[in-house]
Amino acid sequence: MTAPTTTTIPADLAAWLDANDARLKAELSDFLRIPSVSARTEHAPDVRRAAEWVADKCRTIGMHLAEVIDTPGHPIVLAEYRANPLAPTVLVYGHYDVQPAEPLELWTSPAFEPTVRDGKLFARGAVDDKGQLFLHLAALEAHLATRGTLPVNVLVLAEGEEEVGSVNLSSFVEAHAQRLACDAVVISDSTMFAEGQPSILSSLRGLAYFEITVTGPASDLHSGMYGGAVVNPAMALARILATMHDAEGRIAIPGFHDRVRAWPDAVRAQMRALPFDEAHFRAEVGAPALGGEAGYTVLERLWTRPTCEVNGLLSGYTGEGAKTVLPSTAMAKVSCRLVPDQEPAEIERLMEAHVRAVAPPGVTVRVEHLHGGRPWRAEVQGPLFDAAARALGAAFGRAPVITGEGGSIPVVNDFERLLHVPVLLVGFGLPGENAHAPDEWISVRNLELGMRAMATLWDEYAAAAA
Amino acid sequence: MTAPTTTTIPADLAAWLDANDARLKAELSDFLRIPSVSARTEHAPDVRRAAEWVADKCRTIGMHLAEVIDTPGHPIVLAEYRANPLAPTVLVYGHYDVQPAEPLELWTSPAFEPTVRDGKLFARGAVDDKGQLFLHLAALEAHLATRGTLPVNVLVLAEGEEEVGSVNLSSFVEAHAQRLACDAVVISDSTMFAEGQPSILSSLRGLAYFEITVTGPASDLHSGMYGGAVVNPAMALARILATMHDAEGRIAIPGFHDRVRAWPDAVRAQMRALPFDEAHFRAEVGAPALGGEAGYTVLERLWTRPTCEVNGLLSGYTGEGAKTVLPSTAMAKVSCRLVPDQEPAEIERLMEAHVRAVAPPGVTVRVEHLHGGRPWRAEVQGPLFDAAARALGAAFGRAPVITGEGGSIPVVNDFERLLHVPVLLVGFGLPGENAHAPDEWISVRNLELGMRAMATLWDEYAAAAA
Repeated sequence: MTAPTTTTIPADLAAWLDANDARLKAELSDFLRIPSVSARTEHAPDVRRAAEWVADKCRTIGMHLAEVIDTPGHPIVLAEYRANPLAPTVLVYGHYDVQPAEPLELWTSPAFEPTVRDGKLFARGAVDDKGQLFLHLAALEAHLATRGTLPVNVLVLAEGEEEVGSVNLSSFVEAHAQRLACDAVVISDSTMFAEGQPSILSSLRGLAYFEITVTGPASDLHSGMYGGAVVNPAMALARILATMHDAEGRIAIPGFHDRVRAWPDAVRAQMRALPFDEAHFRAEVGAPALGGEAGYTVLERLWTRPTCEVNGLLSGYTGEGAKTVLPSTAMAKVSCRLVPDQEPAEIERLMEAHVRAVAPPGVTVRVEHLHGGRPWRAEVQGPLFDAAARALGAAFGRAPVITGEGGSIPVVNDFERLLHVPVLLVGFGLPGENAHAPDEWISVRNLELGMRAMATLWDEYAAAAA
Repeated sequence: MTAPTTTTIPADLAAWLDANDARLKAELSDFLRIPSVSARTEHAPDVRRAAEWVADKCRTIGMHLAEVIDTPGHPIVLAEYRANPLAPTVLVYGHYDVQPAEPLELWTSPAFEPTVRDGKLFARGAVDDKGQLFLHLAALEAHLATRGTLPVNVLVLAEGEEEVGSVNLSSFVEAHAQRLACDAVVISDSTMFAEGQPSILSSLRGLAYFEITVTGPASDLHSGMYGGAVVNPAMALARILATMHDAEGRIAIPGFHDRVRAWPDAVRAQMRALPFDEAHFRAEVGAPALGGEAGYTVLERLWTRPTCEVNGLLSGYTGEGAKTVLPSTAMAKVSCRLVPDQEPAEIERLMEAHVRAVAPPGVTVRVEHLHGGRPWRAEVQGPLFDAAARALGAAFGRAPVITGEGGSIPVVNDFERLLHVPVLLVGFGLPGENAHAPDEWISVRNLELGMRAMATLWDEYAAAAA
């Protein structure tokens, strides 16, 4: 990766961003106040409101054709700026929907009332992904406000279903492939390796998310009067879940690893060379010890290995005190993080077959596939990546490192497959940001530097492509 | 057991019960409307209201000294009728508290609005135990109203904490042992073997009820960003629960069976001879198949074998859709039904030691003992049991059978231990009554015959003891 020693943030853009700092942050707070929780039906009007907010912002900064386009689910926002037919075209993707905020009582300040404490902006969506989408809009505004144009052609595509599997995005991209034709896709929905250390992501894990329901008796029973002769569905569920890993922490679902592609030794060596502070990571997580699959480092477990996690459990009586009930049903939300070349549809078949194979007589099981996304690995090279390295270096004063990430951005594969272009993943979150938990935050400094880096990127990319 | 061929319901009592049938049922409905849920703090005033209702009823029918006596928890109602110092004294025990009614949406008619359908009276507490406590009060009223006295001395003791482990009853009985001195205790809080088949219970299982909490990370984490390197507490909980039974359905907690007393072959043979319809039981339960410990019949599993059940599970995200969270904690409510001579306090130690032994590194576990009760086995003989057999035969037209039951009545042991008297368990519930589930009911016919049988019992017992 090219060292970024000679690049600086263009003075006009830097001055404009400095001058407009307070207003931009106030606008982001307005955006964060909209509870655009895509998983909850009752928030559908809020999700649409967030879409309208993004489209309005695109229009206000001077983009063309900013539209809120209906889908069978939540809408997609698409805006364009055609600067120059000879310049390269980039598609900036982000999402304006957010995770549910529950459990609400664990938030220090309300989830949808943005609050700054200790240099962190707290709100649901602050980092995932409203804050990172917004910093791109601010970078574009800096160009348009100071120069009246952009150095590259830009498409902004923002969806409202990322947190529920982007179920309508790929068909949208496919249907609008001509309008979306571009030279590269840029996405900021990830974290930097460490504070002050800009990062370019080279891999993402995929996802296969299930709801497993075990049903025994037709209704809840008295555990004294029936217990011992009726199979307890909550105990059956526990026994089913316990078969999903072996004693070494390796996933034990038959066939699960068949398509896992080995990582090159050189990449593993580079990962092991990153200055990763395991004690700090453990302290940040707050668990008594770390864990996981035997034979891998923490970063390898996070970036290169598949997982099988319980995301939720519900059965029987969960209130105060003791209720002696033999529950009728037990539910687990279970999801697998996938690595190349695992396929969500195949994992779905393997999961269902495994659950049915290990379920005891006396209960029925249902495995519902809620959503999935393919894993991804990139070759990090070419003019856009070099430009990004210089822009990040200019803003952060340090060359970026190449990382992996354990999370999923299901659309990355779709963009590659449908638009036949490279995808640059450059994120400004930080470890510990609570992306899907109470007290989600983004570093205010990263927000500022992210705007400056992305504003600089368009100059650098235009120059490299010229 | 003495055949009851020659006994009939005394004509005066039968006539009075016939004449007052509608009023008595209306009074029971008033009692059932009080949501006396002892497990829920917010229902404490309702629990007290139910206690006052019982005391008022005792006063109204002519008992002496009906009192609502405060305890550190919910109050105890005590009423006396001293008929004749030469007659035997019986203590009638019941409880006026009820289980929580949740899930409310599964009730056909509201839990606290008593409704008769198809000869069944539906309400929370209809059978457990307000309905059965009330039929004793009605039987006493029949005597007092028709004859102005009772053939035996009677103490009525009703508590409001049976569903939360009767935590204050044994100290109350101990403190008031002199006032509570009696020749026998009679309790109706159990079921008949089948419709039309009166039953005397000879054994009850005990209980040890736990809340197990597994904690991993300090807060909920993004399952993509942390999954694979942090031990998932919900998966850890599932693996812990899965160690509690072996592949044969036998409880695998070390030491758990050490004190289990073998049942005599003759008793097992008698149980196996009862006309038990396994297909009907399965259909009533509504499960695809029955299950349980290898080597035992259904009735043996229910009456003679200990259990380990999950009563509730809660972790992470349990709402609509998919949330990719690695939960901070996972909770299971787990309870063991115990058989003679298992001790709840010892089972508590064994459970905690086992959970700690099998918990993986990376999580902490907490095992909270919510409540417990000892198992019980009786010798069914003597004048009271013979009188009960005759009274039940007179009311139901059939001699009672001797049964076991899988449920717990924790106070039975306390009465035996503290008052040194036999305990007669004669219940009027029926299989499928949904005692701790939605749509709890009592047979209206059993309510009527129960009043008549218990009214007859006092004459028979007085005659036998004379």
